[in-house]
Amino acid sequence: MTGSAHDGTHDPKLRSWVASANEPGSDFPVQNLPFGSFRRRGRDETLRCGVAIGDRILDIGAALAAGAFPPQAERAAAAAAGPVLNALMELGPGAWSLLRAAFSHALREGSPHERELEAALVPMAAAELALPMDVGDYTDFYASIYHATAVGALLRPDEPLLPNYKWLPVAYHGRASTVVISGSGVRRPVGQTMPSGAQTPFVGPSKRLDYELEVGIVVGVPNALGDRVAIEGAERHLFGLCLLNDWSARDVQGWEYRPLGPFLAKNFATTISPWIVTMEALEPYRAGWQRNGDDPQPLPYLDCADLRTRGAIDLQLEVRLETAAMRAAGQAPVQLSRSNFRDCYWTVSQMLAHHTVNGCALRSGDLFGSGTQSGPAPEEAGSLLELTQAGRRPLVLPNGERRAFLEDGDRVMLRGWCEKRGAARIGFGEASGTILPARA
Amino acid sequence: MTGSAHDGTHDPKLRSWVASANEPGSDFPVQNLPFGSFRRRGRDETLRCGVAIGDRILDIGAALAAGAFPPQAERAAAAAAGPVLNALMELGPGAWSLLRAAFSHALREGSPHERELEAALVPMAAAELALPMDVGDYTDFYASIYHATAVGALLRPDEPLLPNYKWLPVAYHGRASTVVISGSGVRRPVGQTMPSGAQTPFVGPSKRLDYELEVGIVVGVPNALGDRVAIEGAERHLFGLCLLNDWSARDVQGWEYRPLGPFLAKNFATTISPWIVTMEALEPYRAGWQRNGDDPQPLPYLDCADLRTRGAIDLQLEVRLETAAMRAAGQAPVQLSRSNFRDCYWTVSQMLAHHTVNGCALRSGDLFGSGTQSGPAPEEAGSLLELTQAGRRPLVLPNGERRAFLEDGDRVMLRGWCEKRGAARIGFGEASGTILPARA
Repeated sequence: MTGSAHDGTHDPKLRSWVASANEPGSDFPVQNLPFGSFRRRGRDETLRCGVAIGDRILDIGAALAAGAFPPQAERAAAAAAGPVLNALMELGPGAWSLLRAAFSHALREGSPHERELEAALVPMAAAELALPMDVGDYTDFYASIYHATAVGALLRPDEPLLPNYKWLPVAYHGRASTVVISGSGVRRPVGQTMPSGAQTPFVGPSKRLDYELEVGIVVGVPNALGDRVAIEGAERHLFGLCLLNDWSARDVQGWEYRPLGPFLAKNFATTISPWIVTMEALEPYRAGWQRNGDDPQPLPYLDCADLRTRGAIDLQLEVRLETAAMRAAGQAPVQLSRSNFRDCYWTVSQMLAHHTVNGCALRSGDLFGSGTQSGPAPEEAGSLLELTQAGRRPLVLPNGERRAFLEDGDRVMLRGWCEKRGAARIGFGEASGTILPARA
Repeated sequence: MTGSAHDGTHDPKLRSWVASANEPGSDFPVQNLPFGSFRRRGRDETLRCGVAIGDRILDIGAALAAGAFPPQAERAAAAAAGPVLNALMELGPGAWSLLRAAFSHALREGSPHERELEAALVPMAAAELALPMDVGDYTDFYASIYHATAVGALLRPDEPLLPNYKWLPVAYHGRASTVVISGSGVRRPVGQTMPSGAQTPFVGPSKRLDYELEVGIVVGVPNALGDRVAIEGAERHLFGLCLLNDWSARDVQGWEYRPLGPFLAKNFATTISPWIVTMEALEPYRAGWQRNGDDPQPLPYLDCADLRTRGAIDLQLEVRLETAAMRAAGQAPVQLSRSNFRDCYWTVSQMLAHHTVNGCALRSGDLFGSGTQSGPAPEEAGSLLELTQAGRRPLVLPNGERRAFLEDGDRVMLRGWCEKRGAARIGFGEASGTILPARA
């Protein structure tokens, strides 16, 4: 069952008059329609929002001016025509759905708007992409039990998983000002560390720089301070998902994090992919959320019947690495791991219900990270910390290079996609970043 | 020595033509001139920034329109005439200083502008105050060693102070969306806790709700992502200080905080006082920063010569409590503690230098909390957790009520002021909040 395919926008047989959207393996077929912010490169243009279709971006403001939307979608289109999506996000799922239906109709084969919309298309290759929302607050969860157990085993062999883990989705606040768009360079952070056996801390470039493969979750509908969002309606507050790399300096983290959690080890950069895939686009990929027999039943505020039938999301994830040497030799990036967001211990609705149980106000454009998405098998680990056993077993790359942690020039690429029989494949594009040497 | 009293704005002999500013004990004499955001209550007005003078607020936009500023201060005044101060903050200390000098001249006795500025004054009693800046990110430090040691002793009797404490100013990210202005009600949070000996967590209103007496530190000048701010110039990035109450649900915190730090225990509300006292106004109250003989020398990036002569700030702090019963009986609030920001282990310049050592971008309007400011004596503790030994020794109030933690209806008032011989007393006003019952 594919959920609410009521308006036909998920029909796998739909094709677009934008030919590249119909190519097998395209991340952006007409069933996807994710939102981003862009401008044409090399021109003196302001940023504006668009929708990805094949290898093109549909300029929403231009499409609106061309009269391509039915009256009921014009308000939402106008809210989406600025440089960021926050105004659209505030309008809520009814408006998002009307706009999606309008894009679907305008971009599918046989649309009467093809001719005028041709002029509103910009080639992705000619575009510069930007953060699609103003992020008010960024919260990072820790929702993969496989990651939490693996990291816990490295830090606390006698107690890998802490007693609270199966009762609440552990999270902490991250930094909004350093959320950057895919493609931005990531400067190796300088920080304070305490080398084993030393008497005085070392201050210098991090020697244990890592990535974390996460899913980004974007809040759409805000809640007022003091109001809690019940889990039954929690997903109606969510606008969509993206990919997120929670870059981490493990040596800095190990020294600074007690007792108040990670700070400078994380807040130097968080990379997200440019296209926000809406919750509605993900409908065909909802999956039952499961716990093992010995896991406790969720507390009532974290539980609802829907979870068992559609709480999870079947989103395939991949990390690839391209070193400077590989790039120079023209070698393809190497896959470091794959995992699936379906294996996450906590669902996105549980995250949102927990975040607001105390009345915490969420705003449109707020960002959650899911926590590193590691799967049950060791090779499904979403960070080098796990893959290399805290650096003790460096990876050997196809060209003979070894990697315990990231080196300058390394490019890390996160990818995500949903694919199954009977539904159109939809993709997330990429969240990539290249490590720049530390400042002298 | 009173620092850079070069322009005479700190001269204790200065008097204002606003009579209430000259009253002994006024928080807002002409030597202070703090900034806030206000509108007249009960009118359909937009928020705008003003400067506190005695029991009046000078409307900056109205003063600008009246021609009260010299040409060199007009750009800064225009930047400060909107609903928030972020644009003024971005202009930097040169502009702030010009504006301060202009206010000082316009508001002192003998000013030629008295007549036209009279019309730009609004009684504080008739004003509603609002957050004076858009807070991009809120960071909470942990910079009082007396607080850290006292709390550590409750949690880890064998290791009260963790090994990193004397090497780096420990901090974590808090939530920007729930920073509220003094006077806002604080809803008792619902949360998950694990009662001692229980098998299943409890979900309900926090039973151990506490305040934390902190100093708020407001960033003025931003730094670009990747750039670090050297400690020598760090204070030029700071706009000013306020009071901050980091409300804390101790029972929620105890269960949720491992391994990533406090989250829902803190992010339901953070109250700040409405007036930002500028760093320049604090010049006469700079004091030498000292460490004990057995404390390590700061690492070079956290050290500079200035620290020993003027790193600290002689800011007196006080917590008062008014219970609902006291209010009903017309009894005065009771003082719970006093302390002094001068006793803080880390200075504001060290906080900023540390925060940016990894290239973390700070934005105008970003807020730091200093961490709970407890002094060396037990009665100088800045939280109930410390004053009542985690609730084991409830306070007995003058009316016979007992308090282990806060009850519904309790009003907590933070106050701060600077006072010494040879300088004008300047005050911070108040950061207050009343506990509202949890939502059903």
